[in-house]
Amino acid sequence: MRVLGVDPGLTRCGVGVVEGVPGRACTLVDYTVVRSDPDADLADRLFNLDVALAELVARHRPDAVAVERVFSQHNVRTVMGTAQASAVAILAGARAGLPVQTYTPSEVKAAVTGSGTADKAQITAMVTRLLKLDAPPRPADAADALALAICHVWRGGTRSKLAAAAAAAGGRRGGQR
Amino acid sequence: MRVLGVDPGLTRCGVGVVEGVPGRACTLVDYTVVRSDPDADLADRLFNLDVALAELVARHRPDAVAVERVFSQHNVRTVMGTAQASAVAILAGARAGLPVQTYTPSEVKAAVTGSGTADKAQITAMVTRLLKLDAPPRPADAADALALAICHVWRGGTRSKLAAAAAAAGGRRGGQR
Repeated sequence: MRVLGVDPGLTRCGVGVVEGVPGRACTLVDYTVVRSDPDADLADRLFNLDVALAELVARHRPDAVAVERVFSQHNVRTVMGTAQASAVAILAGARAGLPVQTYTPSEVKAAVTGSGTADKAQITAMVTRLLKLDAPPRPADAADALALAICHVWRGGTRSKLAAAAAAAGGRRGGQR
Repeated sequence: MRVLGVDPGLTRCGVGVVEGVPGRACTLVDYTVVRSDPDADLADRLFNLDVALAELVARHRPDAVAVERVFSQHNVRTVMGTAQASAVAILAGARAGLPVQTYTPSEVKAAVTGSGTADKAQITAMVTRLLKLDAPPRPADAADALALAICHVWRGGTRSKLAAAAAAAGGRRGGQR
């Protein structure tokens, strides 16, 4: 399963692509950060992000897209741009006909570090180790996007197992995947 | 000049299309509200809005798109969805190669009622009168979208006139209104 993870941001949008199966180590496919000029016109910024993400989806042909869920508790000055960037990321997946899943930051942290309150350095360290990289991915937005993609591979597996178990137990409604 | 105005919302997104020239009465072309189920998947909701807005842009072929600017001062529970819907609306214009302009609610209110603190009822009443409609557009989201479109026609004109006046006066910088 190949997953494209997006850590949404208008100025810096992290994108990470990994491949893997639940319960095993994932392998790195690619990561990048899509940047836009904070002084540029909002329509241009959103459009450039849209074009860049569509191109990445077309190039890597992921099976699913995972996007960090945005909360209004974030810094109120940046949250609007983050919400708008997340909409562009979700659309990039939906328009390609792919399943799109959102995860909270603490779900991602828990999936890759075991702790929902891990800091950025821990995330980066774990992503580096899990993907057997020679050096930490930079900038941190890329590490977060890779963590999202890993989270989706692993959580998808857990959900599938739960669904299978539920089905085996007599057709009770299972998880979502 | 034909303008498509969007009052962004995830559950109800108002769209209004008017035609006109600065300083004259505008005429109604169309208005509608794109709805989505609050219980539906976020990706489906954004994608459906994207498809609906793209279709409206293709059908009405506006010269510009005007979108209400979203502020974080809004209700914090709905502001994320509004920000995401506004991104979809801005993209719908940008992807069609159209100029996209955002306006604050008070700019729109001032343009159509003369007061930046007008309430919804005043906006609806003025839009009804300005477009010579037999009955107020319903729901109010549609009236707000029409007000945005009227605002853009008029403001665009005002800006051009001010710019021309400033140029005639010897290149002094004109005001923005």
